[in-house]
Amino acid sequence: MNAEIIAVGSELLLGQISNTNGQFLSRELAELGISVYYHTVVGDNKKRLEAAIQIAEKRADLIIFTGGLGPTNDDLTKEVVADHLSFPLVIHQPSLDHIENYFQKVNRVMTDNNRKQALVISGAHVFKNDNGMAPGMIKSKDCIHYLLLPGPPSEMKPMFTNKAKELLVNLKGEFSVLHSKVLRFFGIGEAQLETEIKDLLDKQLNPTIAPLAENGEVTLRLTAMANTKSEAKNLIEKLERDIHERVGQYLYGYDDSTLYSQLVHQLSLRNQTVTSAESLTGGLFQRELTSINGASAVYNGGLVTYSNEVKMTILGVSKDILHEFGAVSEQCAISMAKNAKRLFHSDYSVSFTGVAGPTQLEGKEVGTVWVGVSTPTTTKAYSLNLSGSREGIRNRSTKYGAFYLLKELQKG
Amino acid sequence: MNAEIIAVGSELLLGQISNTNGQFLSRELAELGISVYYHTVVGDNKKRLEAAIQIAEKRADLIIFTGGLGPTNDDLTKEVVADHLSFPLVIHQPSLDHIENYFQKVNRVMTDNNRKQALVISGAHVFKNDNGMAPGMIKSKDCIHYLLLPGPPSEMKPMFTNKAKELLVNLKGEFSVLHSKVLRFFGIGEAQLETEIKDLLDKQLNPTIAPLAENGEVTLRLTAMANTKSEAKNLIEKLERDIHERVGQYLYGYDDSTLYSQLVHQLSLRNQTVTSAESLTGGLFQRELTSINGASAVYNGGLVTYSNEVKMTILGVSKDILHEFGAVSEQCAISMAKNAKRLFHSDYSVSFTGVAGPTQLEGKEVGTVWVGVSTPTTTKAYSLNLSGSREGIRNRSTKYGAFYLLKELQKG
Repeated sequence: MNAEIIAVGSELLLGQISNTNGQFLSRELAELGISVYYHTVVGDNKKRLEAAIQIAEKRADLIIFTGGLGPTNDDLTKEVVADHLSFPLVIHQPSLDHIENYFQKVNRVMTDNNRKQALVISGAHVFKNDNGMAPGMIKSKDCIHYLLLPGPPSEMKPMFTNKAKELLVNLKGEFSVLHSKVLRFFGIGEAQLETEIKDLLDKQLNPTIAPLAENGEVTLRLTAMANTKSEAKNLIEKLERDIHERVGQYLYGYDDSTLYSQLVHQLSLRNQTVTSAESLTGGLFQRELTSINGASAVYNGGLVTYSNEVKMTILGVSKDILHEFGAVSEQCAISMAKNAKRLFHSDYSVSFTGVAGPTQLEGKEVGTVWVGVSTPTTTKAYSLNLSGSREGIRNRSTKYGAFYLLKELQKG
Repeated sequence: MNAEIIAVGSELLLGQISNTNGQFLSRELAELGISVYYHTVVGDNKKRLEAAIQIAEKRADLIIFTGGLGPTNDDLTKEVVADHLSFPLVIHQPSLDHIENYFQKVNRVMTDNNRKQALVISGAHVFKNDNGMAPGMIKSKDCIHYLLLPGPPSEMKPMFTNKAKELLVNLKGEFSVLHSKVLRFFGIGEAQLETEIKDLLDKQLNPTIAPLAENGEVTLRLTAMANTKSEAKNLIEKLERDIHERVGQYLYGYDDSTLYSQLVHQLSLRNQTVTSAESLTGGLFQRELTSINGASAVYNGGLVTYSNEVKMTILGVSKDILHEFGAVSEQCAISMAKNAKRLFHSDYSVSFTGVAGPTQLEGKEVGTVWVGVSTPTTTKAYSLNLSGSREGIRNRSTKYGAFYLLKELQKG
């Protein structure tokens, strides 16, 4: 099965938005073993969309459209596809009910053009839109499948993942269900992780293993196809055990979790709190932690101690430490962590001091970082030598802090 | 002139990266008055790229390729285009010198395949790559222009903006130079801004005015075409004065500046410092400020006071204020700003307290925010009622803080 993705929307051709849907669908299709040979972006124009369909039919047997399913006159994807396939558009009553309910719920008047959103290609399999109004649909003719999805990523992505994807598995014919699980790793590079599981990667077939490195983390997405959900889950579990044996010490979470959400979760379970004292990271750790719903239960506050003066006067790091070892030192990181924990009456604390760049500090190279971690019973500091941009160094430093804390929580 | 953008790279079809180059080029071309009717993404495959070129030639007279100019066997854009146009590839000596110098500079051995990067289509106009090795080029045949640009956005964007763009202006024929300036606004919505300058937008022709709303800010990009640089600059200046008269109070900077870089810049000029005490924003203001190079000259540190206890014990907000007005109040914001300024011995300070959501706080609605601003002589608090997500509310709150501080600095 070969796919072509056609994104419809003049806003894409004007550069107002980027075709992130193309990337998302490509990744998903790769996982299903469906090759994608072309993406096409075309404007809200009947003639040009029709021409794009004719070209796509010559080179793909699955054509996925995103966009152009809305209520306005500009939205013409299903009109053009229906016309092209010589099928009429018909009102899909459950979709119309869904749209009418929506307007009732938000107490707005439903203008007539919204009925247009409930039109579907006659005989198509319809996907309800759980995050918007326009339904998606798939229709097949002459061995070519036409899958129409809404344009807004917040509607398109869940519709594809939760509804269309399994249908494509079925269309491919061999299996009928699909199950995915994302394993999240930190503290190990993509190359090293791939080396550790090379034999598993080499022999992968079902489940597939898709590694992805992003923002200093590595994920492995495991996807199994089978004929029952439990069979698919068993396949994943077995593979996960194999992976865990090799690189389990770097695994910190699953699916949508983050280092920070795990930290908030683990501390909440224990009814404990954390604080932080940040120098080079300038508040990034706290900003990340407090972006998690429920952070207030585990975090009362913290400090950014950028200058040495503030490290002394407010955080109480001794002049001797700064004089003898400097601010970028194990001793300073330990003192910062200890004092912050005491100052904020918290159970745990983390401190960050180092050289984010662009220039050296205290004769220490850019990327030299100390992360202090204080638990109810111990305090220690970890040394990091990071490379990359100022923002990259700050970002990875805070992630290491969260990771070390998580490891301490897992011990305790 | 109609353009088609062809992005070449299998990594795009596997979903490993998104075609952000397509968006960037579309926006740039719109500004030049060049219509874009299609984007195509194709893999590193000779046959399929050749097919895409043949299709594009039927519907565009400017074909812009991104990607596939590198040293590996997968990189085949210029090979396919040269072959298609029946021109040979020839070594471009300045490009080869540039590549050899690069390897000498980083003290690495230049493998032979890097010579391939210095090959250009015979007779093409070559663009030096200031941020990488592979040069770009433009070649015309039978009234169709073929523009080849590198794939990495960090190389492609400056090459297009600084080199290829003006050449396209010349190709269009009417003018020979181009000048752009971005005006950055905060505190005014896109709709209101567009209303205030509606007559200017309606009659725009040269310079063009391109509004863009992003991350709670609005920018206007003014682009003038003329026959001399000074003539273009004059056109921009005149329009800018008109715009300034209407909405000058919301203008905070130009081109690549940000609210935070402006703040660091203005404080540096005055040799003054700022601190912050953050509740709902959880360190975001400090994190943004310290992401600017040179922030350490104007910022010694600050506090995140998430819980009421920490607001009292560490920041010294009185129990009475919290009891009588609550943490989300004008009084608390003022007290936080005043006390932080004193604690950190800074000239200015800003405080943030409010309800980021997802739930109410102290009976106050999500989006209720107070921003305190303290100068060497005064302290006041601003009330905001923001809508949107938790992250959106936090993000705009900190930007308002930076904006209010900037306004105070402009007064002083």
